[in-house]
Amino acid sequence: MTAHADLSPTLQLAIDLIRRPSVTPVDADCQNIMMQRLGDAGFKLEPMRIEDVDNFWASHGKQDGPVLCFAGHTDVVPTGPVQAWQLDPFNAVIDEHGMLCGRGAADMKGSLAAMVVAAERFVADYPDHKGSLTFLITSDEEGPAHHGTKAVVERLKARQERLDWCIVGEPSSTTLVGDVVKNGRRGSLGAKLTVRGKQGHVAYPHLAKNPIHLAAPALAELAAEHWDHGNDFFPPTSFQISNLNSGTGATNVIPGDLEAVFNFRFSTESTVEGLQQRVAAILDKHQLDWHIDWALSGLPFLTEPGALLDAVSSSIKDVTGRETKASTSGGTSDGRFIATMGTQVVELGPVNATIHQVNERVLAADLNVLTEIYYKTLIKLLA
Amino acid sequence: MTAHADLSPTLQLAIDLIRRPSVTPVDADCQNIMMQRLGDAGFKLEPMRIEDVDNFWASHGKQDGPVLCFAGHTDVVPTGPVQAWQLDPFNAVIDEHGMLCGRGAADMKGSLAAMVVAAERFVADYPDHKGSLTFLITSDEEGPAHHGTKAVVERLKARQERLDWCIVGEPSSTTLVGDVVKNGRRGSLGAKLTVRGKQGHVAYPHLAKNPIHLAAPALAELAAEHWDHGNDFFPPTSFQISNLNSGTGATNVIPGDLEAVFNFRFSTESTVEGLQQRVAAILDKHQLDWHIDWALSGLPFLTEPGALLDAVSSSIKDVTGRETKASTSGGTSDGRFIATMGTQVVELGPVNATIHQVNERVLAADLNVLTEIYYKTLIKLLA
Repeated sequence: MTAHADLSPTLQLAIDLIRRPSVTPVDADCQNIMMQRLGDAGFKLEPMRIEDVDNFWASHGKQDGPVLCFAGHTDVVPTGPVQAWQLDPFNAVIDEHGMLCGRGAADMKGSLAAMVVAAERFVADYPDHKGSLTFLITSDEEGPAHHGTKAVVERLKARQERLDWCIVGEPSSTTLVGDVVKNGRRGSLGAKLTVRGKQGHVAYPHLAKNPIHLAAPALAELAAEHWDHGNDFFPPTSFQISNLNSGTGATNVIPGDLEAVFNFRFSTESTVEGLQQRVAAILDKHQLDWHIDWALSGLPFLTEPGALLDAVSSSIKDVTGRETKASTSGGTSDGRFIATMGTQVVELGPVNATIHQVNERVLAADLNVLTEIYYKTLIKLLA
Repeated sequence: MTAHADLSPTLQLAIDLIRRPSVTPVDADCQNIMMQRLGDAGFKLEPMRIEDVDNFWASHGKQDGPVLCFAGHTDVVPTGPVQAWQLDPFNAVIDEHGMLCGRGAADMKGSLAAMVVAAERFVADYPDHKGSLTFLITSDEEGPAHHGTKAVVERLKARQERLDWCIVGEPSSTTLVGDVVKNGRRGSLGAKLTVRGKQGHVAYPHLAKNPIHLAAPALAELAAEHWDHGNDFFPPTSFQISNLNSGTGATNVIPGDLEAVFNFRFSTESTVEGLQQRVAAILDKHQLDWHIDWALSGLPFLTEPGALLDAVSSSIKDVTGRETKASTSGGTSDGRFIATMGTQVVELGPVNATIHQVNERVLAADLNVLTEIYYKTLIKLLA
């Protein structure tokens, strides 16, 4: 173990943040610590508490020129059973393997600390930098995510703020810090399908319409359909039925209807309307009496190679010697909300192997590496 | 309304039987009344209480020669809400339309009365008749049917009894008494199918195996399959999925398995083993990891045109002028157990429009017609 005072500024700040048990949507003063530091560095601060969620917006620089944003969240997922942890999840100890342990170490208080320290150094070294450097921080990314980034983005749009580039601190790396950045995420489109038949007795099928029999060929066709081929950044759109239910429980009754819940994870090669129309066409082709309630969870977004991805990739190469891989895999993130501003969005953070698990941890040295990468990226884009 | 004493012997006996509330499996002394009458007519009586079920076997005649059996049940289904009945279900009143009303009037105390009266007349008129005339009566046809006809048939088989012809008193007629007789019933084969997949997250389908997607084409093929073409007496074998369930309830989880409950109503053109093999072949063709628990409810049976069907049909024609129609439609009956003795089995009883409903009733005059038909049939086969 290392004494707190001997640690790098990034690790000291990460430990301070982890020691505040900010289980979503509670912020536990994490944002105040960050705002204090950024305010001292000359940032203009704008707390934005929306309903029960703490958020803040901070900016440093000029009105004109490019705008780069560091985005992230101070809230963490619950610890699960504390007795299953080898170390107190809110004590932020660096263990004998050099791992910083605690809830939020990887997702994403380590990134927040690296962002703050990189920003402090950058505005100190380049006080008259191009454009502006901003922060968009929420405490509701791990929860419903209604009053967090999504709501802040709505306010920024309403007042015509522009965001050219955004680095989200989500833990994107898989085995070594910087080996993977996320340059987009698939969209997620959910649906509840009801197929109506006509109830009856199994001994008299001619008097009934079995919705299971009617729907089975259509479900088989939906499951076999190739929705698109994906592209260089996205795997093909996938369709999965998660729940399928029909029947009264009785073994001699033909049920009256069937319910199927399904989900698309879709690439930028497909659109919501296009997928909906193709599903409808398949259901109609099978002459089903059907109804669907659709629920769009998030549109896909993609940051194609360009200034931001180039700057991030070359900074990773400079600091670590690694060629990074741009990927769009994984679940959704707040990047989807920011991308709706026309922003290039890249997610770059530490190794995600332990996130949302007990004994969440991150190599302490990686947070210093991450600070360097963020700092170099700022230089490439705003110096 | 008619005074009890003015009624025919069949109606008097039917009323006596209906007034005993023999809700399955209770017999409420119905069988004692029948045995008393048959004993007085010279029948040899053999009560066979098996577990909690009253049954009896009675016979009249010689050891050699053909054996004809009247089969039926004294138990009735529950009344349902008594206040929904226009008349007391156990008072057996003949209403202003000449309908004998009460639980069991049609299913099947009217038939039992007609059988007893026809048998009394026949043995009085033909005391030295050919072969033997028997009764197989149970009080567990409307219940589990384990300790009723099935168990009695096992005892009869064990002692090498022979049964050539059997008339079951089930209400076979649809609009006019004798318009339909049942000369067989379809078999019923149930199954619970489990298809195993591999659980996972909908965002990572390549790490999971969705049992819904895997099973859908196989279920579609099973639903579309033509199992046989039926024959002159049976409609084609039908396959119906009654229950289909898969999913954890969560919309982002690919389920680990799928369960489908299905049922065959099968003709004599298919066998249990044949259907099982064909289902297995379809599931294997789709390379599913599957398991089925099969449950055979009843084998199909068929009485082809021959001495019994000819005698019954011509008796109906003699008494009513009607051409009867032989049918194998409808649910199962105790005839399926008796048919396993190699017996020709025909079901002939009154109109079934109100069975198992409130206000069960039968045209009183029809029971007299039915008595005549039974009597004529006895003459044709045993005189």
